[in-house]
Order: sequence, then C-alpha cells, then structure tokens
Amino acid sequence: MTTHASVERTTADAVRDVARAAKDASRTLAALSSDARRETVHDLADALIDARDGILAANAHDVHDARAAVAAGALGAGTLQRLVLDARKLDEMAAQMRAVAAQDEPVGRVRERTLLDDGLELRRVTCPIGVVAAVFEARPDAVTQIVALTLRSANAVVLKPGREVRRTARALVDALRARLARRGVLPPDAVAMVDDRAAVDVLLGLDDLIDLVVPRGSQALVRTVMARTRIPVLGHAEGVCHVYLDASADAAMAIGLVLDAKLQYPAACNAVEVVLVHRAAAPALLPPLVAALRAHGVAMTGCARVASIVPGTTLAGAADWRTEWGDLRLTIGIVDDVDAAIAHVNAHGSHHTDAIVTADADAAERFLTRVDSACVFHNASTRFADGHRFGLGAELGIGTGKLHARGPVGLDGLVTYKWELRGSGQQVASYVGADARPFRHARLPTT
Amino acid sequence: MTTHASVERTTADAVRDVARAAKDASRTLAALSSDARRETVHDLADALIDARDGILAANAHDVHDARAAVAAGALGAGTLQRLVLDARKLDEMAAQMRAVAAQDEPVGRVRERTLLDDGLELRRVTCPIGVVAAVFEARPDAVTQIVALTLRSANAVVLKPGREVRRTARALVDALRARLARRGVLPPDAVAMVDDRAAVDVLLGLDDLIDLVVPRGSQALVRTVMARTRIPVLGHAEGVCHVYLDASADAAMAIGLVLDAKLQYPAACNAVEVVLVHRAAAPALLPPLVAALRAHGVAMTGCARVASIVPGTTLAGAADWRTEWGDLRLTIGIVDDVDAAIAHVNAHGSHHTDAIVTADADAAERFLTRVDSACVFHNASTRFADGHRFGLGAELGIGTGKLHARGPVGLDGLVTYKWELRGSGQQVASYVGADARPFRHARLPTT
Repeated sequence: MTTHASVERTTADAVRDVARAAKDASRTLAALSSDARRETVHDLADALIDARDGILAANAHDVHDARAAVAAGALGAGTLQRLVLDARKLDEMAAQMRAVAAQDEPVGRVRERTLLDDGLELRRVTCPIGVVAAVFEARPDAVTQIVALTLRSANAVVLKPGREVRRTARALVDALRARLARRGVLPPDAVAMVDDRAAVDVLLGLDDLIDLVVPRGSQALVRTVMARTRIPVLGHAEGVCHVYLDASADAAMAIGLVLDAKLQYPAACNAVEVVLVHRAAAPALLPPLVAALRAHGVAMTGCARVASIVPGTTLAGAADWRTEWGDLRLTIGIVDDVDAAIAHVNAHGSHHTDAIVTADADAAERFLTRVDSACVFHNASTRFADGHRFGLGAELGIGTGKLHARGPVGLDGLVTYKWELRGSGQQVASYVGADARPFRHARLPTT
Repeated sequence: MTTHASVERTTADAVRDVARAAKDASRTLAALSSDARRETVHDLADALIDARDGILAANAHDVHDARAAVAAGALGAGTLQRLVLDARKLDEMAAQMRAVAAQDEPVGRVRERTLLDDGLELRRVTCPIGVVAAVFEARPDAVTQIVALTLRSANAVVLKPGREVRRTARALVDALRARLARRGVLPPDAVAMVDDRAAVDVLLGLDDLIDLVVPRGSQALVRTVMARTRIPVLGHAEGVCHVYLDASADAAMAIGLVLDAKLQYPAACNAVEVVLVHRAAAPALLPPLVAALRAHGVAMTGCARVASIVPGTTLAGAADWRTEWGDLRLTIGIVDDVDAAIAHVNAHGSHHTDAIVTADADAAERFLTRVDSACVFHNASTRFADGHRFGLGAELGIGTGKLHARGPVGLDGLVTYKWELRGSGQQVASYVGADARPFRHARLPTT
C-alpha cells in the first residue's frame, strides 16, 4: 500500500513525459564533444555484450510467443526469423554500433562562412535535429542501429518497437540506459522507449517535442506513419523503380542490368519493377531479354506492343505499372522515345530510383535531368541505390520526399544547421539610412 | 449557346488541373539552362513595364474597393497602403526581378562527388523542388518576387493572392503568362494563379502535385496554412526573440544592442521581445537599460526580481514570456546564469533568433551551442537575421522549422538534390558474395 493515492496516468501523459525528458536530454547531447559521443556509443556496444544473458532471455520469451503466433497463422515465418537473437547476432549488433561510432563527425561542420563586416562573422553550422522517434517492426537490430546513429549525431531517440519484439527491445534499451546512467555523461532519457500500443498515435502527435519520425519496416507501416503525423517523416512508402532501355542500348549490357536489378535481391526497395523499352530497340532486344528473365523464373506482364513481339505475353493491367512486386514479377512496356519514358516514370513511379541504359549521351542527360526521382542512374543497376554502396556508412533509410534528406541517407540525414553570428556589438541601425555602413559579405574558407 | 452541354466543374477539379499543368511545366523548367531561366526572368521584368497601364488600371479597382472597406472599418489602413501601385513601384518590382535574375545559379551544383569504382561515378546535385504554392496577402510585389525566385530556381509556382489584391495579381500574372507564351521557351502554366476563396484548401491538399508551400503575410495566415496542410511549409508563425545580457556583458554594448533590437524596426519578426539579465549584472545594468528604453517610449513588464530593482515595474503575466509584441513593448526577466537563460529561451522562445551579450567566450559558446534556434548570435543585434544582411540575395522568407531551410532563406531554399550515378554497365552482383569486387569510394573534387 502506498501512502499517496496512486495516480491514474493516461498513456498520453506518460508518452509526453518520455518525449519531454528526451528533449531535455537532447540539449545535453547537443553540447557533448564528438569524442564524448563516439566513446558513449562504443561503451553502449560493450554494454550490449555485458548484458547478453538478460537480452537473450527476454528474446526467448518473444520468440516463444512468436512461434505460437506462427503456428496459429497469425504471424509470418519471416518475422519470426528476423526476431531471433543469439550470441553471434548480438556480437554483430555491437560491431555495427562501433562502426557507426567510427564514422565521420556530422555535427559542428561549418558549411558556409561569411564576413558580414569587420568583427562580424556569420557561420552556417551543422547541428543535431533534436529528438527522433523511430517506429519499427520486429527487428532487434533496428534498436541498436538507430540508437547508435542518433547518439552519434547528438540526437535523442524515442523508440517504438513492434509488439512481437517488445521484450527484447525493452531488455536492450534497459541495458543501454543502465550504462548511460553509470557513465553519467548523458541522461539515460536520451534513449527512451514506449511500448504501449496506443503510444504510437500519441508520439506522432507530439510535433512540439519530436522533430523527425523514422519508420523502419513494411510499406504498410511507413504509409500508416506518414498518414498519421505532421512531423517530418524520413522514409519511403514504396519503390517502384524503372529501367529504361533506350534505342542505342547495348543489348548485353541492357539484359545484364535488368537481370541484376530484378534478381540480385527481388525484395529490395531498389529492385526494378517496370522495364520500358524504346520501340526501335524492342524487336531485337525484347525476345532475348524475356527469354533470359523467363529462364530465371521471372513472370511478366506487358503492354499490347510487347505482346505483338513476344508470344504468350499476359497483358498488363493498369495497376501493374504502379506495383512494387518485390518478387520475381515484372511489368514491361514499349515507349516511343526517351521523353515518353521520362513522362511514364514521372507519372507512375515512386520517385525512388530509375535508370536509363543507353549509348546516347544526350538521351542519358535528358533522363537524368528530367526524371524527378531521388536517384537517377545511367548504365548502372538500380540496386546501387544504397547507403553502403554510395559510401555513406550506416544507412538510416532511403527518403523519397523532396526536402531534407533524399535517396540513401546516412548520418547527414540526422543533422540540420543553425546560423551563428559572432559580433562585437554591431547594431543594424549602422547599416541602414543615408550614411549606412556597407556590408562586406566576404566569403571565407570553411575548412 | 454552346453545342456541347456546359460542364459543371468544381473548384477542386479546376485547382487540380492548374497544379497538374504547373507540375508538367516544372519538368520543362528543370531542363532549361541557367541562361534561359535568367533571360526569362529578365524578359518578365520587361513585360511588367510593358503592361503597366493594364496593371495600374486593375490595381485602381482593387484600391477603390479597399478604400471602401477601410471606410467601413472592414480593412486596416496598412493593408490599403501596401496594396497601392504606381509607376515608380512597378519599376521597383521590375528591378527586384532583375536582381533575382542576376543571382548565382542555385541549380545543378555538384555538392558531393564519389568515385564508387572505375567508370562508376556518383554525384549529389542540386535540382529544383518542383511546384511551389505561394499563399500571400495584399502585396502586389509578393507576386513578382516569388515568380522571379521560383523561375530562377527552375520551379513552377501556383499563386494564391489575398482577396484584396486579386485583380492586381491577375493582371500581373496575365502579363507574365502572355510574355511566356510569346517567348515559347517555357509553358505559361509555370506561373499559375488561383483566386477562388475555396481554392486555398484544395491547393493545400494536393500533396501529390505541390512540393512546398510558402506563406507570406501575417502570423495568422502562416499558422492557418501550417495547420491545414501536410505539404512542407517554409515559414515562421512567430518571432519571439530574446537578448540575454550575461554577467560580464559590457553595459554600453548591452544597452545599445537591446535598443537596436527593439527600436530599429519593432514590427519585424527578428525584433527582440524578451530581455533576460544575469542576476549578478541586474543591479547595475537594469536601471540604465530601463531608463533608456522608457526614454524611447518602450513599455515593459518584468518578473518579481526585476520589480525589486526597478521601481514601478508592472509584473509580467505568463503570456508575456511568449508574446511577439511587434511594437514598443518588452518583457524583462532576471535569470540565475547562462544555463537558466538557455533553458528559458528553449522553453518559451519560437526558435527564430536569440542573442547573448557577454565578454565571456565560454558562456557565448555555451549559448550558441545549446540554444535550439535557427539563428544564435553573440554580441550582435537580433535584427541581423535577414537574407539581405546575411548576403543571401533576395529573401524567400525565414524558416523556423528544423529541416530543409532554416533561418533566412534565399534561392537555396528552393532547391533540393538528387543522386546521379553514371556507370558503364556495372551490376551489384559483382560487389557482393565471396569474390566481391571492393568499392573505391574515392571522394572527388566538386568544383
């Protein structure tokens, strides 16, 4: 029995308190040195290993329940597979955290420097965003990766794991928070977690405390998150990627790139879903392309013009041109020229990654300039659209929105900038009116 | 009588058609050279002068109605004043357009270049955002300025002017579109306008066609726009700016900066609204500061500690700490130290512009690092937060959001970036597995 009446607290209040504490912690984080943040992430990687037994025990509970759910047909086998932790997997997660710790410092970079006048210097400097809400599904490694990325970039994080992984996530977060408390450099509230089912909606409504939402998981999850918040979302709901084979495309290169873009990992968001072929190239190119795809088990639908060249073509329905198949299916169309291809991609694509295969430099530049997608490729597989392959280090995600971070996003997607002006008492009144002092506006080097 | 039955078209359909045509035009714009866009803006400035009589006649209608509205007490005299055009004002508007045309090219800038492997080069390149919706009040010059800024940066624009200025805006837009049609380089739909009152809500709902919303006008307008759309908004609802006078602040500098920040243009969003004073400095600093402010007609409220030092202080109510006065009023508080000042600014400010006055370099860095605002100043007036003073050229606005453009925003706020990858047939399959080819990831110069 408690001496005070226990207070009924609503989920909304509880989640707001968590987010507010994270915001407070983010102020401390913003002032930490690069080394302090780097060492913290390293130490948290160690904490993961030290807490191995507790984490694996919690995971065993989650796995037990997930097995039952799979047996009952309520959960997919793939989800169960991604859920399972063991000592080796934990080691990998810790190594991944250390790799993030080792990345280049994203905060405090001087992007512009201008001498406005003598003794009045303006700098545009990168700084953390503040508090990131990460909403994800049944992946334990999502917890440690997002924690490493956010702390490394001086942001606080509020995690909302999927229901299936909640005990594992709680054990991971408890271990990380306990280590933060012991270190004493950073408030444990910099790494927070909410696991009430109603918490997501509350979290997505806290636009005064949460600065960025990062959903990681299925298209359905990302779409749901995007529809429910006014906070900026970093993510992509779908990847309907195109490869356009131009009139002058080298046949071997064209077939090789389509096969790679479809087969190398069909479930990836940057796998090709629609192939467009220039009508002049189609008669010679389509038969061997389709034969190669069929040989690898790819099922295709096509437009009427494709059907007139390739016997046995199933006609594509309207939805086929906008579908992220995510498996061994593909839609093929014939277009009149590069402009028709560009118009098709802009109208039906998802602004993720689109490629042209051509020997014609003008057509390539036209495609790269006019296709309105985060990634536009010439004579390269769409599968290169990836933070690791781009050399960005750990990938936070791929953004298909227009603003902030676009395409594969690394640590840079977790920083913004502020304008710092250092003066010596200057007043604006001196720079206006009849005998106004002129500004110098001299660009200074930023290194 | 028409031979076809006339079609009842809803506002929603009409506005969507306008936005879709603007989107199509934006594809053409994206492919225009820098010179072509520069010349187009120049030519549109000429068109303004050529169409002078028609524009002034339309303006006379708007002014006539506005006068009646002012007489009836339905409109402020300030709005009427901003509405009135004459030949001199039109010349200024044309000159402003030419100044935007002359600015540095924001599109096609290579921000990063990485050689992923031999013959496989990645570039991060600035590109236009697409279609900008500009929602503004009764300022004719807003039309021409936003058109110049958007076309210069290769974006299409849909304008929604205030009701009071709609005939003037229509005449301006018609003149600009007629010139675009005559030039033939760019579809006239790149500059569109909707003026139906219901059009705003439709426009703000078109998140598949509109990429950025720029509201220009009162706080109420900006707040309304922000509340009604999921499209990113570039703007600031309010500017509750602080000046914090630290323990070691030079008294003359401190008083000079507060006076400048309050008096130089009290209605500006970057004018100071709250002054915080370190308790150690308050006894000596507050009496002369308050005397100087009173001498300039500034009315003040203050906290209890201020009242204990300055006789006749009106106690500040809770709202006073969050109010953008916009006139000769000010709220003054005493804080224990720089950390208390930082906490106050972060809790009560609007993340616009905040300044510290101090001789203590550590306190200054602490304030600049920890205050979570778009602009953080040391020993300089908050009034410097301005695109012109920052050397950005024409100012699109000031953003207080965290992402994309923050603080004073010039043409750079109207571009985003895309990733261009140029290869020679590379497949991802070559870079994975047992005998994976390694990436080079060599940074290349971007000049």
